Amino acid sequence: MTVRAGVVVTGTEVLSGRITDRNGPWVAQRLLDLGVDIAHITVCGDRPDDLTAQLRFLADQHVDLIVTTGGLGPTADDLTVATVADFCGRELHLDAALEVHIGGIIARWRGRVSADPDPAPLQAGIRKQAMVPEGAQSIPPTGTAPGVAIAAGQLPAILVLPGPPGELQAMWPAALETAAVAAVMARRSVFGQSTIRAYGLSEADLAATLRRAEQQIAGFAALEITTCLQLGELEMVTRYPESSADAYHRLAALVTEHHGAQIFSTDGSTIDDLIAGRLTGRRIATAESCTGGKIAARLTDRAGSSAYLVGAVVAYANELKIGLLDVPADLIAEHGAVSEEVAARMAEGAVGRLGADTAVSTTGIAGPGGGTDLKPVGTVCFAVAIAGRPTVTRTRRLPGDRANIRALAVTYAMHMLAETLTAPNPA
Amino acid sequence: MTVRAGVVVTGTEVLSGRITDRNGPWVAQRLLDLGVDIAHITVCGDRPDDLTAQLRFLADQHVDLIVTTGGLGPTADDLTVATVADFCGRELHLDAALEVHIGGIIARWRGRVSADPDPAPLQAGIRKQAMVPEGAQSIPPTGTAPGVAIAAGQLPAILVLPGPPGELQAMWPAALETAAVAAVMARRSVFGQSTIRAYGLSEADLAATLRRAEQQIAGFAALEITTCLQLGELEMVTRYPESSADAYHRLAALVTEHHGAQIFSTDGSTIDDLIAGRLTGRRIATAESCTGGKIAARLTDRAGSSAYLVGAVVAYANELKIGLLDVPADLIAEHGAVSEEVAARMAEGAVGRLGADTAVSTTGIAGPGGGTDLKPVGTVCFAVAIAGRPTVTRTRRLPGDRANIRALAVTYAMHMLAETLTAPNPA
Repeated sequence: MTVRAGVVVTGTEVLSGRITDRNGPWVAQRLLDLGVDIAHITVCGDRPDDLTAQLRFLADQHVDLIVTTGGLGPTADDLTVATVADFCGRELHLDAALEVHIGGIIARWRGRVSADPDPAPLQAGIRKQAMVPEGAQSIPPTGTAPGVAIAAGQLPAILVLPGPPGELQAMWPAALETAAVAAVMARRSVFGQSTIRAYGLSEADLAATLRRAEQQIAGFAALEITTCLQLGELEMVTRYPESSADAYHRLAALVTEHHGAQIFSTDGSTIDDLIAGRLTGRRIATAESCTGGKIAARLTDRAGSSAYLVGAVVAYANELKIGLLDVPADLIAEHGAVSEEVAARMAEGAVGRLGADTAVSTTGIAGPGGGTDLKPVGTVCFAVAIAGRPTVTRTRRLPGDRANIRALAVTYAMHMLAETLTAPNPA
Repeated sequence: MTVRAGVVVTGTEVLSGRITDRNGPWVAQRLLDLGVDIAHITVCGDRPDDLTAQLRFLADQHVDLIVTTGGLGPTADDLTVATVADFCGRELHLDAALEVHIGGIIARWRGRVSADPDPAPLQAGIRKQAMVPEGAQSIPPTGTAPGVAIAAGQLPAILVLPGPPGELQAMWPAALETAAVAAVMARRSVFGQSTIRAYGLSEADLAATLRRAEQQIAGFAALEITTCLQLGELEMVTRYPESSADAYHRLAALVTEHHGAQIFSTDGSTIDDLIAGRLTGRRIATAESCTGGKIAARLTDRAGSSAYLVGAVVAYANELKIGLLDVPADLIAEHGAVSEEVAARMAEGAVGRLGADTAVSTTGIAGPGGGTDLKPVGTVCFAVAIAGRPTVTRTRRLPGDRANIRALAVTYAMHMLAETLTAPNPA
């Protein structure tokens, strides 16, 4: 059977948009990987009434599992355990052993801090974190806050996890082993999920193909298809029961037939995966102006990237383009710093000066200032230099504000790099 | 009076954690800035029943305004307008002028694409986007999708916005001018909000101070305080009615008295703001190993950073530390690449070679491989070099996985830089 879950993210800092929630997406992905369907994610501030309303909503939607994140800290705004206990009609009890354990963690954490003249306020915070609802299973803290799992009669199972993403993720394996969560997991059945990724394909064109598929493919209705356009990448994810695998394969073939030129992945791999594979045995460098180091940062996000990434030069000032990347000063004077000519010499300079055999470069106007009639804000020039081949250059006008232009430029550079690495060597 | 809003983020790609939602936080911040309280954010997939349930939930919670994001595209999974119309009991009508307008946008977008042998599927997508609920106000598209605003009797006002963040943000000013939204805005009253930011302060210690404040400060209960720890920065945000400004100022004084050494901002400014101010008239460079360009990327996120950022060298390979940053090879052999000695020479090399007067450097082990007993994964050495002063170096062991270690290292480098820039010049 389909097991459905809801995730409740607590914290006024998330609700108010001051910090970006990482826990909702992380928990959702783990549950989907485990074959659990996600019905709702809700975000509420540190207000018991709003949290209770969201728990009630999810229970009314008959989800099998509710996972809450956050609100387990020592401060008075951290109210999740007390609110969940109240929602389940359970009393809170002090777990004395847990109190000692948390006290020990805090003492080690504070370390060098001098003895507190009045330890009572600190102790009150520790005691608050050691309160456990009656009949609930406590999950050992991975920071200072223990988790809680409760199976309460007709209500969904409730799993209460801490807010700091590192603590939450470290606690996940133990959380899955609690009796309440394990009982839910035992009920699920298997779904497949497949992903097709394209770059430079419009949603309108994919939508047209999907309308054709709906008419042509028997069993199309059993495929749950979602599409998402992000930074020029269009992702189509299809979730389907095992019995509909055939219909999915016919759909994938139709989409590939119509949009093969734009599709770069049908097996779930990302552009980062493809680039990493294609860089095996190579030494790459980046030479960045408007992207300010973001391409290098993206490449080094990946463990093991030191096998192929040598380094980068961020040449924001023209003197650095000249001094560190050997771009001729008169080339800049003639064509301007934002030109394919300069981009090409930056990439070639990175190959030469950084001891690489492959380099990608960017030079552009991210704004908000610096645009001209001929080169408005959003104009970005790119080059990919590969030793022994002619350097490839391109220019794009990217839309949006400074952050969007920079993000689009990084994605464009990644795709141009991936494509150039697979192109047949004309030499 | 307090005006409350709920935000509904739609899209299976968000619900399933494949992409990080940027719209919920953005809309929440804009509404808070306008004095509207945010009660709930909910996320649902592209399923009409789940979306209807969330709209019903928010209406039952008596919010004054519901803002939905996403689900306005041409594909069959984009169902927001039809679902909202159904929820409000309104028929959908084709807006013929809007259909022509959207068709024109799509035609320009597709541009070079050759004439479609069968335009019907594409036209169906365009027609779908031109359907408007009866009595609703259509908001002109900023991409291909128009927005919608509805005031429907006893229900909250509903504002339907597109999913792509650039489109949504561009549409916001027009959305506020719709009759339905303007009527809600006319009802709100004013709250103040103040933020205190600290680095290296534990939540437990702040919680203890807040417990003291609760006992000492009259009117404390009217202050809505939320705290959030992120990458070592502890943020305390207090929202309060104008009549409680005095209580807030007493609280701020108490917190500053106890934790002044860790507090770096009481006026809402971020560490990025402080650094930008302190770099006026300076020329800064970064020399990065384990952070891979992330510090340069962070500094250049800011418009106008070209006034003080010269550039950066990402010296992932040791040859680049030697070749581009003048780190002596025997220093690396003697102390290892991850050492304060090497960090210092990297920063000094960046000052010398990049024509800067200020530089910050990192060299560390982000993992998962490369750790040793003496220098485990998470060990990161930092240096700040300022021309004419002794170079400052430090070593930290940062917790978590590769992504967390790198993110913590960037934040640490930012704080070390800000602090060094304000330290009295010993020369």
